[in-house]
Amino acid sequence: MIIQLSPDITSDQKRQLFDQVTSLKYKTNEVVTQFGTYLVGIGKKKFDVRSIGHLPGILDIHIVSDDFKLVSSKWKTEQTVIDLGDGVKIGGGHFAMMAGPCSIEGEENIYKTIEHLKANGLQIMRGGVFKPRSSPYSFRGMGIDGLKMWYKAAKEHGIKIVTEVMQVSQIEEMHDYVDVFQVGARNTQNFNLLDELGRIDKAVMIKRGISGTIDELMYSAEYVFSGGNERILLCERGIRTYERASRNTFDINAIPILKEKTHLPVIADPSHGIGLRDHVSAVALASAVAGADGIIFEIHEKPDQALSDGQQTLDFAQSSRLIHKVNKLKEVLG
Amino acid sequence: MIIQLSPDITSDQKRQLFDQVTSLKYKTNEVVTQFGTYLVGIGKKKFDVRSIGHLPGILDIHIVSDDFKLVSSKWKTEQTVIDLGDGVKIGGGHFAMMAGPCSIEGEENIYKTIEHLKANGLQIMRGGVFKPRSSPYSFRGMGIDGLKMWYKAAKEHGIKIVTEVMQVSQIEEMHDYVDVFQVGARNTQNFNLLDELGRIDKAVMIKRGISGTIDELMYSAEYVFSGGNERILLCERGIRTYERASRNTFDINAIPILKEKTHLPVIADPSHGIGLRDHVSAVALASAVAGADGIIFEIHEKPDQALSDGQQTLDFAQSSRLIHKVNKLKEVLG
Amino acid sequence: MIIQLSPDITSDQKRQLFDQVTSLKYKTNEVVTQFGTYLVGIGKKKFDVRSIGHLPGILDIHIVSDDFKLVSSKWKTEQTVIDLGDGVKIGGGHFAMMAGPCSIEGEENIYKTIEHLKANGLQIMRGGVFKPRSSPYSFRGMGIDGLKMWYKAAKEHGIKIVTEVMQVSQIEEMHDYVDVFQVGARNTQNFNLLDELGRIDKAVMIKRGISGTIDELMYSAEYVFSGGNERILLCERGIRTYERASRNTFDINAIPILKEKTHLPVIADPSHGIGLRDHVSAVALASAVAGADGIIFEIHEKPDQALSDGQQTLDFAQSSRLIHKVNKLKEVLG
Amino acid sequence: MIIQLSPDITSDQKRQLFDQVTSLKYKTNEVVTQFGTYLVGIGKKKFDVRSIGHLPGILDIHIVSDDFKLVSSKWKTEQTVIDLGDGVKIGGGHFAMMAGPCSIEGEENIYKTIEHLKANGLQIMRGGVFKPRSSPYSFRGMGIDGLKMWYKAAKEHGIKIVTEVMQVSQIEEMHDYVDVFQVGARNTQNFNLLDELGRIDKAVMIKRGISGTIDELMYSAEYVFSGGNERILLCERGIRTYERASRNTFDINAIPILKEKTHLPVIADPSHGIGLRDHVSAVALASAVAGADGIIFEIHEKPDQALSDGQQTLDFAQSSRLIHKVNKLKEVLG
Repeated sequence: MIIQLSPDITSDQKRQLFDQVTSLKYKTNEVVTQFGTYLVGIGKKKFDVRSIGHLPGILDIHIVSDDFKLVSSKWKTEQTVIDLGDGVKIGGGHFAMMAGPCSIEGEENIYKTIEHLKANGLQIMRGGVFKPRSSPYSFRGMGIDGLKMWYKAAKEHGIKIVTEVMQVSQIEEMHDYVDVFQVGARNTQNFNLLDELGRIDKAVMIKRGISGTIDELMYSAEYVFSGGNERILLCERGIRTYERASRNTFDINAIPILKEKTHLPVIADPSHGIGLRDHVSAVALASAVAGADGIIFEIHEKPDQALSDGQQTLDFAQSSRLIHKVNKLKEVLG
Repeated sequence: MIIQLSPDITSDQKRQLFDQVTSLKYKTNEVVTQFGTYLVGIGKKKFDVRSIGHLPGILDIHIVSDDFKLVSSKWKTEQTVIDLGDGVKIGGGHFAMMAGPCSIEGEENIYKTIEHLKANGLQIMRGGVFKPRSSPYSFRGMGIDGLKMWYKAAKEHGIKIVTEVMQVSQIEEMHDYVDVFQVGARNTQNFNLLDELGRIDKAVMIKRGISGTIDELMYSAEYVFSGGNERILLCERGIRTYERASRNTFDINAIPILKEKTHLPVIADPSHGIGLRDHVSAVALASAVAGADGIIFEIHEKPDQALSDGQQTLDFAQSSRLIHKVNKLKEVLG
Repeated sequence: MIIQLSPDITSDQKRQLFDQVTSLKYKTNEVVTQFGTYLVGIGKKKFDVRSIGHLPGILDIHIVSDDFKLVSSKWKTEQTVIDLGDGVKIGGGHFAMMAGPCSIEGEENIYKTIEHLKANGLQIMRGGVFKPRSSPYSFRGMGIDGLKMWYKAAKEHGIKIVTEVMQVSQIEEMHDYVDVFQVGARNTQNFNLLDELGRIDKAVMIKRGISGTIDELMYSAEYVFSGGNERILLCERGIRTYERASRNTFDINAIPILKEKTHLPVIADPSHGIGLRDHVSAVALASAVAGADGIIFEIHEKPDQALSDGQQTLDFAQSSRLIHKVNKLKEVLG
Repeated sequence: MIIQLSPDITSDQKRQLFDQVTSLKYKTNEVVTQFGTYLVGIGKKKFDVRSIGHLPGILDIHIVSDDFKLVSSKWKTEQTVIDLGDGVKIGGGHFAMMAGPCSIEGEENIYKTIEHLKANGLQIMRGGVFKPRSSPYSFRGMGIDGLKMWYKAAKEHGIKIVTEVMQVSQIEEMHDYVDVFQVGARNTQNFNLLDELGRIDKAVMIKRGISGTIDELMYSAEYVFSGGNERILLCERGIRTYERASRNTFDINAIPILKEKTHLPVIADPSHGIGLRDHVSAVALASAVAGADGIIFEIHEKPDQALSDGQQTLDFAQSSRLIHKVNKLKEVLG
């Protein structure tokens, strides 16, 4: 069950409420977020909701049969909108296109990308400064200095930043330069990282695990929410299967299923989802009509010279055509 | 290599040509289809195409580096159009919507479905009369009598029939009542069945195997083509993965990849691809914008009373909305 | 439920029994095998077993909660022994080692293999004469003539033959020359083939599907059993996963799980299970100690010259060492 | 390439060597471990090894074609032995059995387990004090206090401790109480954690990712080794597949393949590998004969009352029988 507490609940009332829930053999968890305070009760026993509902200090009470609670659409029926400021919103009818290089490569790379985004009406730029790499000998990104350089340019042009955070110790140093913290596919179940991201007031985009289930993705979001942060985006980026013709198998099914299960915005990453430059647009368009709240894709002025992931990166002409088509489709579908 | 022979090649010229190819250490296969005669040479050695090209009796010669040959778009660059007669075409710009019940259930079921198809401008009806079932104790379909009943009604209303053939011995009895023979996901690598379907002049739609690769699907089509039948459709219907939130994982990536690799039409089956009625339309729309040449989906007047697969079957209202949306999208994308 | 009928049940008694079962809303299936006659009742309703048990003409009655019935160990608790004649038995304590080339290649190949088997105390030889191949242009085996040649040599030396049957029409021509019909991984759900193999009195070994579940394998066996043939072997041969370091992922778990679920013998095929010659023995030993009733593996005098699957084929020295080790382990484990 | 440096190499000699490698267009990485100093050169260009080999200050030089270097058996041919002190060794002929509860539950639980281990001749105990859980509302383990309590008891009885570390910040507080740090399946690609574990002098056991490849596991080990720690164990614990009859699919193939590819000890975790109590022993025995250097499994005095993973936990009688059988098999196989 989820009970939303009134802001002016007294401590006596709160104690009484928690005791009452505990007496039903429910484990109580108090969740304080930037937007509200909730009592999440975990248990299986049936009970009469009125035995709690009459208590003072309660705004709202719901029985949620799902194992995840706060991220479930069984609790919150209206869709969550993530507001990044300056009129940039994601979800609840605001379709977001985010693009940028796999790795931030330097000033020119940043400026060319921003120029392209602005020319096409995009407001959010993606890019990696801390790169998870299978091999310890590979390029691991420009680090915090790259991020600061990027931030300076982005701020100047009113562009928002999405970038991956790999570990708890990076959160603080990155915090002021980031609009959306991305949790990568290898960290979807890095529970300590999720816990910490629950303690900040920046949006968090969680990518589905390399072979994560849809439910596991929802649980990971529940970590962030129950830690205190309601500003969460979920991202489908393809799963690992036996098929070798594409880098991953983009799970288009996940989009309508997540849209049914959760009130959080659902983003599609077609670049990792298929891994083949010529086919990224097909998967992006498919995601848009299947109900995604946004797409995130890799672009580069000269993909073949990109420091990483060039084979799945669109050049600017391809990117412009994709953006144009998505805009046209969204218009038709209303 | 693929060499298209001239219809008036003499037997001496043919022998000379085959000898020349054999002398290059290429294995020769003569393929005679309803539309042409080909020499398919299998080998790895490099050679000068001119050493063959000058011989008499040749229309055309191509080196095809893929392991599949006749179905490859490296050989045939224009897209194949499957003409079912009466103006019903699939592929090459002709987008086909096919719908019908999982199993043909009887006269009323047939007539209601046909009425719905016609009201929505559809010309092709799907339905099973021979049903592959995991358990020997399950309903196995109405059989040949059901097919004949269906054919009578379909012919009357100008509707074409797609239905599954499960074994070689059924081909002959089904032949006159079928427009498109469907090869089911469990039979994608039933090579004897494919061989036999290569010997007839009806269209064949091959479903991707339960966990078949894209390449294996192409190879299965090569069986039919090299057997003598060029009228082939490929169908993506979802693959088996670890994810349990949907029946299968619809591989949206397969659509643009197949469209690049082969000249054959590519059909999407969103019903089996996701297996959840409320989300079939999302996957169908996604497939249409990703480049499919058609969609095939399950409908029923009362899905909850359907003899099989009810949970993934659209009712008529859902079907009409889907058809309307697809038409709108196809218009926009041109 | 499964009711074993008495051989001298009268037709009146039988009718009474079937009516009684039908009245419980159970679908009745009469199964007549080479060893007995059974009534398999399919339904979900609870009922009192005594309401049937008192009827005349019944030997035995069991409620089987599994979806598969006749192959379930919930019905038949003692393990099935497959007797191939001449003292060659598989299952129920009789551990069988079967070896031979991937494809039968000719007389010398046959004789060398038989010689090796006899020198190592083996009595069953595997080999393919009809080969399922992804590409229509690949070698498809020596066919029926190869089988006859092989049979002549095998009979002479008291060796039993296991070989794959690919289609219904081959059963009759192969019948007299085969001891165990193998159903390949691509045909595990070729239900017509399974139906027909249910009508003969030769042992049938069913390989698990390329990505078949354990339950699907049991269901496929149920097809053969309910068709009338109780002489069935199940074979784990690896499944398709994302891992590329081996040809397939040998599912060692399947062995103890199958041994718990069914009374049928369980065979392991380490050659296809790992696909790497140097590691076939490790998987074979693992299977033996995990509870398999036998192993089937590929051998060749000169694996590098084998017509197919050379990379997973043991040479004779490796084979001898493996057989010796398995014998030692079986001795220790008792 | 891997160049092992002499302990008395001068800084001039070192500079000369690094310059020489750089001049071949190889990226140089200096790796200093507890046992030696290495120059790992990453590049693709062919070169004459003698152009480097003659330089002073070199003990040893190898070309390693694998992408992982220091963990490859192409570099180090003798097997690595992990010495935990007090005569407790793993690898290179020392077969290790490690057992204990999924979660450490308290004093009684600890003492009963230790008693059982000692009675059966085992020297290493596993147990979780920091538990990764999908849901934020689940029990997350006893934490550092539980570890200290455990350590006190273990030290008293000469028992070594294997336990999972989930994040960088835990390493320091856990360090003095742990013999082997376990990296869990969800953290196999938590590169920051691996980096940090490379800086300590305690053994590290890395579990294969939930759907990690064999190569990725090797790369993760390369992170630890290149960070400075040579004391690494690899652990196969089953992978995620479509099969639902078992918790995971234990990849028995991985054992001989890893033993071929790396010099590091390979441990099997049959408890997570199959997830079914009655079949854990079958998989454990299979692993032992397939070449594993040890097994790790879950035991509990009363599995049905265990705080987590009870369904895959052996009771003490099952554990004793398993240990006895493994000892017998290891004796036979020599």
